[in-house]
Amino acid sequence: MKFKNFPMVPRVIFGRGSFDQLEEILAPKRDSEKAPFIFLLDDVFKGSPLEQRIPLYGKDSILYINSLAEPKTSQVDAIRDRIRHDFETLPSGIIGIGGGTVMDLAKAVALMLTNEGSSADYQGWDLVKHRAVFHVGIPTISGTGAEVSRTTVLTGPEKKLGINSDFTTFDQVVLDPDLTAGVPLDQWFYTGMDCYIHCVESLTGTYLNAFSQSYGEKAQELCNEVFLGNSLPDEDLRGKLMMASWHGGMSIAYSQVGVAHAMSYGLSYLLGTRHGIGNCIVFNQLEEFYPEGVKHFRKMVDKHGVEIPRGICEGLGDDDLDTIINVSLGMVPLWENALGKDWQHVITPQKLRGMYEKM
Amino acid sequence: MKFKNFPMVPRVIFGRGSFDQLEEILAPKRDSEKAPFIFLLDDVFKGSPLEQRIPLYGKDSILYINSLAEPKTSQVDAIRDRIRHDFETLPSGIIGIGGGTVMDLAKAVALMLTNEGSSADYQGWDLVKHRAVFHVGIPTISGTGAEVSRTTVLTGPEKKLGINSDFTTFDQVVLDPDLTAGVPLDQWFYTGMDCYIHCVESLTGTYLNAFSQSYGEKAQELCNEVFLGNSLPDEDLRGKLMMASWHGGMSIAYSQVGVAHAMSYGLSYLLGTRHGIGNCIVFNQLEEFYPEGVKHFRKMVDKHGVEIPRGICEGLGDDDLDTIINVSLGMVPLWENALGKDWQHVITPQKLRGMYEKM
Repeated sequence: MKFKNFPMVPRVIFGRGSFDQLEEILAPKRDSEKAPFIFLLDDVFKGSPLEQRIPLYGKDSILYINSLAEPKTSQVDAIRDRIRHDFETLPSGIIGIGGGTVMDLAKAVALMLTNEGSSADYQGWDLVKHRAVFHVGIPTISGTGAEVSRTTVLTGPEKKLGINSDFTTFDQVVLDPDLTAGVPLDQWFYTGMDCYIHCVESLTGTYLNAFSQSYGEKAQELCNEVFLGNSLPDEDLRGKLMMASWHGGMSIAYSQVGVAHAMSYGLSYLLGTRHGIGNCIVFNQLEEFYPEGVKHFRKMVDKHGVEIPRGICEGLGDDDLDTIINVSLGMVPLWENALGKDWQHVITPQKLRGMYEKM
Repeated sequence: MKFKNFPMVPRVIFGRGSFDQLEEILAPKRDSEKAPFIFLLDDVFKGSPLEQRIPLYGKDSILYINSLAEPKTSQVDAIRDRIRHDFETLPSGIIGIGGGTVMDLAKAVALMLTNEGSSADYQGWDLVKHRAVFHVGIPTISGTGAEVSRTTVLTGPEKKLGINSDFTTFDQVVLDPDLTAGVPLDQWFYTGMDCYIHCVESLTGTYLNAFSQSYGEKAQELCNEVFLGNSLPDEDLRGKLMMASWHGGMSIAYSQVGVAHAMSYGLSYLLGTRHGIGNCIVFNQLEEFYPEGVKHFRKMVDKHGVEIPRGICEGLGDDDLDTIINVSLGMVPLWENALGKDWQHVITPQKLRGMYEKM
């Protein structure tokens, strides 16, 4: 058996208000006056006090990102082309400030500034040839684990799949729980559930080992505290959920996600369903595979009065369903982790169609 | 408030048998044929099957380390001088294979190959000027957290204190739980308790935040499973204790240890008491500060039938006691973490003398 030599984020700063140390973190990384820092900022922060706190010098620029849609390879390529057009030199760094979408775009743009072609060429495992430019992740919503992962999940012309590479991992992460204040309830819940579902999938998977288990158990405990626990102060809940996301991401470093992610990738690919809510829609129907996890999930849904949409696949034609099913069946490592080497005996296209039709 | 931008180990491989991937991990790091890898190997492994599995090429060498004594600045300097004498160029890397002593020596030697003077000049915080040579940590006993920490604790001519620096952290860690098979019961226990005591000190300390808390809680849970749980297979226990050590080390990254470590440093400095057993001797007398932690600790001692020595300070003269007390009182951040800014009102030299006399 061969084990992965996992690339961890080499620098992390944690603390309420630690965002204000960004200036001193970036200063030694500036290559030259001509080489700007490019900040990808979720456009919900346009004109906000947070935007005012971004340290800008010389040619440093902010690019606003609309995160209502999942990140696309075409979007990555367009941002990369724009940066190449607008500046004489490679940037000193790319800084993503936002949720999973913005962080994944920051990782992908940093990679594509030093690797030729389209980002779609690199969807897969270990296809990236050159080190990315320096890139920093600053989450403003917790749950995806994008801040620690070695992937950036993109929707391409042919598939929704990550650029999985040792070069994808951020060089620096800033964990400031105060940045997640003000996230709307439903987004907070759906994104938090991404973490919870990671944990269920990792902890029940066949790839599990002591490394993943210890991270996954802690992340799941923290999710339970946050989503089912008794009233803690908001600032404590924000810190705990930020750490849940971190540990949840570390847990899948050495294992894999499972059925919910494999199926929600299919939905996202065809319907553009956002990752967090897509996972919830799918997971809500997975008692067969994750009975305990789904039971707890429904308790969390009830406690917070969040609505999980149903009927998302109603009215879809055969071609559309086939597309969803094919994207989902393509996620081989996820199915294998969930169900073992013989997963294809359990999950046939027919079986999967029946499951989607219930969603 | 200012937060630490913490350097994490940038590469980690985990798995039973992962030691056998060392060759492929090291190959791309070889600078030239003249630049050897130097393996610091605990001399308990001399002639062992493990030694046979070390991948040696060209001028690569093994230096045996006797770990019956705590690592010293003079020892670091001597190993550094010997390497400089024996080889034409800087080594490609230093690989420590052993417990906390060997790992701390590997870190310190790697630092001192690129920094002038004696290692004693760098005991303290952030005094190191130059990046170390590539260095790898491979624990063969679990508990110290030396595999993840940014310190290497050395006994110098004037003090027992770490070289705390961003350059100290290993570039690569190999976590292979099978390497800890065969550790004698008492060493297994004393070193494991180093982790347990870290956690108690971190979780009850005033420096605690959500980052440290999540790691510390998980490490403590794993210690409880290993030392108080019901019979799990040995290989599972080894994996869990290895992860406890890892998470325990991460927990103190952002917080600090406390009374037990501050006091055991004093014992080590004067009497050469080994760190693991020294912590146990001290902690066993700290009900006043850690009532719950000490209660659980004693359950673990009873369950495993391990002896915690008493009377270690009996017969010491005033000068010796003063030396111990002064070294201990010098550990300001540890006392401050344990007892707050006003710690000097609680811990006077007289109070400390009374505590040592009971040990």
